Amino acid sequence: MTKTAWKPGALLAPVPAVMVTCGAGETANILTIAWTGIACTHPPKTYISVRPERFSYPLIVERGEFAVNLVTAELIRAADFCGVRSGREVDKFAACGLTRQDASQISCPLIAESPLALECRVDRIIPLGSHDMILADIAAVDVEDSLIDAAGRLDLGRCGLAAYAHGSYHILGKEIGHFGFSVRKKARKKTK
Amino acid sequence: MTKTAWKPGALLAPVPAVMVTCGAGETANILTIAWTGIACTHPPKTYISVRPERFSYPLIVERGEFAVNLVTAELIRAADFCGVRSGREVDKFAACGLTRQDASQISCPLIAESPLALECRVDRIIPLGSHDMILADIAAVDVEDSLIDAAGRLDLGRCGLAAYAHGSYHILGKEIGHFGFSVRKKARKKTK
Repeated sequence: MTKTAWKPGALLAPVPAVMVTCGAGETANILTIAWTGIACTHPPKTYISVRPERFSYPLIVERGEFAVNLVTAELIRAADFCGVRSGREVDKFAACGLTRQDASQISCPLIAESPLALECRVDRIIPLGSHDMILADIAAVDVEDSLIDAAGRLDLGRCGLAAYAHGSYHILGKEIGHFGFSVRKKARKKTK
Repeated sequence: MTKTAWKPGALLAPVPAVMVTCGAGETANILTIAWTGIACTHPPKTYISVRPERFSYPLIVERGEFAVNLVTAELIRAADFCGVRSGREVDKFAACGLTRQDASQISCPLIAESPLALECRVDRIIPLGSHDMILADIAAVDVEDSLIDAAGRLDLGRCGLAAYAHGSYHILGKEIGHFGFSVRKKARKKTK
């Protein structure tokens, strides 16, 4: 268990790989973002870090709205495409065969094929260097109906979410525990 | 593909589940954090969002340093324990059988059993509500030697990283693509 000290780098893993929708109507665009996370639970806040020179940057900043669409294994080719191609050159919804879906609180479309979307309103923008951190309030969460069980609970395990780790996309594998499992008392075995 | 609009919530997934080390010497502590991500590539910056009432919060803020230790499936029970128990009551290194390892740039220990650590210096603190976002510069990256191949490349796929999704821990599953695969030309088949 010896380690070598490397120069500083953005080596956190795994991280999400989400498809961010921005703009509205015919000019709506999709960009894929791995520099995202939850910033606060109450009120619920997220962020995306975006290079200011990206085509989507002014679309997000001018409208003050965007949506974070979660990515499944089925969507991973589209997600990769939306991360490497620019909306300056191609209509990514059309090129990827994706469907615009109305959001409830914002004017940007959601991606119908994504199982879950966070509707976001920009809170503040923090320039950090290559990327600006765009902090946002989560205004609504849109959940694919088939992922909600009879008791009204969300079962995200059903949809094959994808993650990103150091240049590779991975499907989320088997469950290895629930929050709190390490301190939970085992159910006592009944003895005769 | 119909969706139901839910009330706002912190429903991004999958997210990392990392073990943050803070403090120094005998009083060093570990807390597990899912609200983390990369904030900027150049200069490399990350963040952790922490509730100010947590035992580790002043340890991080007063020293201005912490380390982000990546979590594998083997470490998941310890990670869960360090997320639900407080350093006020228990020495988590001892309770989990984890080993302190010296960092190269900061005074907080790393977790020897973790495959990769980010050594971090606090840049600024942004109060957001239940959580303060602690933005930090990544001062060094420490990589387990067995993950570096003969060409000096990091192969993170070998170590069985874990992720967190809506209350469940998962092992990272099979690779389903590399960054850029959707636009790469296929190698031309040789014909006789």
